[in-house]
Amino acid sequence: MPWLPSLKTDTPEEGFDLALKLSRMGVKKTQPDDDVRAELRAVYEKDADSLIASSQVVATNFQTVAAANNYWK
Amino acid sequence: MPWLPSLKTDTPEEGFDLALKLSRMGVKKTQPDDDVRAELRAVYEKDADSLIASSQVVATNFQTVAAANNYWK
Amino acid sequence: MPWLPSLKTDTPEEGFDLALKLSRMGVKKTQPDDDVRAELRAVYEKDADSLIASSQVVATNFQTVAAANNYWK
Amino acid sequence: MPWLPSLKTDTPEEGFDLALKLSRMGVKKTQPDDDVRAELRAVYEKDADSLIASSQVVATNFQTVAAANNYWK
Amino acid sequence: MPWLPSLKTDTPEEGFDLALKLSRMGVKKTQPDDDVRAELRAVYEKDADSLIASSQVVATNFQTVAAANNYWK
Amino acid sequence: MPWLPSLKTDTPEEGFDLALKLSRMGVKKTQPDDDVRAELRAVYEKDADSLIASSQVVATNFQTVAAANNYWK
Repeated sequence: MPWLPSLKTDTPEEGFDLALKLSRMGVKKTQPDDDVRAELRAVYEKDADSLIASSQVVATNFQTVAAANNYWK
Repeated sequence: MPWLPSLKTDTPEEGFDLALKLSRMGVKKTQPDDDVRAELRAVYEKDADSLIASSQVVATNFQTVAAANNYWK
Repeated sequence: MPWLPSLKTDTPEEGFDLALKLSRMGVKKTQPDDDVRAELRAVYEKDADSLIASSQVVATNFQTVAAANNYWK
Repeated sequence: MPWLPSLKTDTPEEGFDLALKLSRMGVKKTQPDDDVRAELRAVYEKDADSLIASSQVVATNFQTVAAANNYWK
Repeated sequence: MPWLPSLKTDTPEEGFDLALKLSRMGVKKTQPDDDVRAELRAVYEKDADSLIASSQVVATNFQTVAAANNYWK
Repeated sequence: MPWLPSLKTDTPEEGFDLALKLSRMGVKKTQPDDDVRAELRAVYEKDADSLIASSQVVATNFQTVAAANNYWK
């Protein structure tokens, strides 16, 4: 099964989770090693600027998912 | 009750508050520990560049919320 | 009276000022203390990279305001 | 005369110049002192990362101007 | 054969891969030397902030690809 | 002849090249001295974070160019 079968979700909340998934996949495609990512995560999850930058990526992907769902109108 | 039942708000001001909520949730989903986030917050709320970066995330999410509300026209 | 009654403005120039207001409010909602913000401002207004980052936030918010006003066509 | 009478321009090239103007105005509204800005400029115009960040602001404003002009189609 | 014959893809997942390709091409066009890029990659693939920044570029390009495909609706 | 006669291109690939041109022009308009830019380039083309930031600018400009060409549909 594909990891991204569709951009459609039933609710805004599921859409936000999909935006998170897209953001993490953007990292994973560049650094596929699970162990390395786990090490890096231990560091950046305690760094405010890294967390804000992560939230910026999620916000950008959420724009895409929200548009794909016509903003769940 | 879901934390994000809808992107619709009654007013632009409530829309801006929703953009703030989305921005913080983007951080919370990566760092779910309330105590760690509180510690980090004590630091970055006194760092101009962190605050500007936070405002950038809010601006991005506000684009999404405003579009979802047809700019409250 | 609400601080953001509408995204509509009479002119592009007023729209740019509204984008500035939204950008500053994004900071203020995270750091509500006026004195702390004044101290930080004294520093970042003399830092080129902070000023460029601020201009980026304004540009993002101006996109929203311009779209809300149908680009004042 | 207002500094931003309209987002309309006759050509894409004038539109790009308007995007530059908007980007600089985003800085000027935060740091209105001409002398301070001139000093900062002397530094950041020799800093590659500052120049790239400036180009990012211009790109964001150019999106707005281009949309306002229906991409000069 | 051109490296970018079209922005159309059959599935969202292929669209995400195309966004990755566009992001890497943005780097390659500035630094065409394969060896230099390989050296740089060895460093930034172990730097959390670089990976987050990369994911931001992918998110931006994915917006373009998704719009080009009408969000695969 | 103007450097930006139009945002229209025959192919997506030419559109990507135009996005690169816009990105570089954003730098050139701030730092017009060819020699200074050449010196800076020698540094940032070996800096992963600078290259990623450059790719971000290109991605933003490519959004504009792609929209101007109706995504070459």
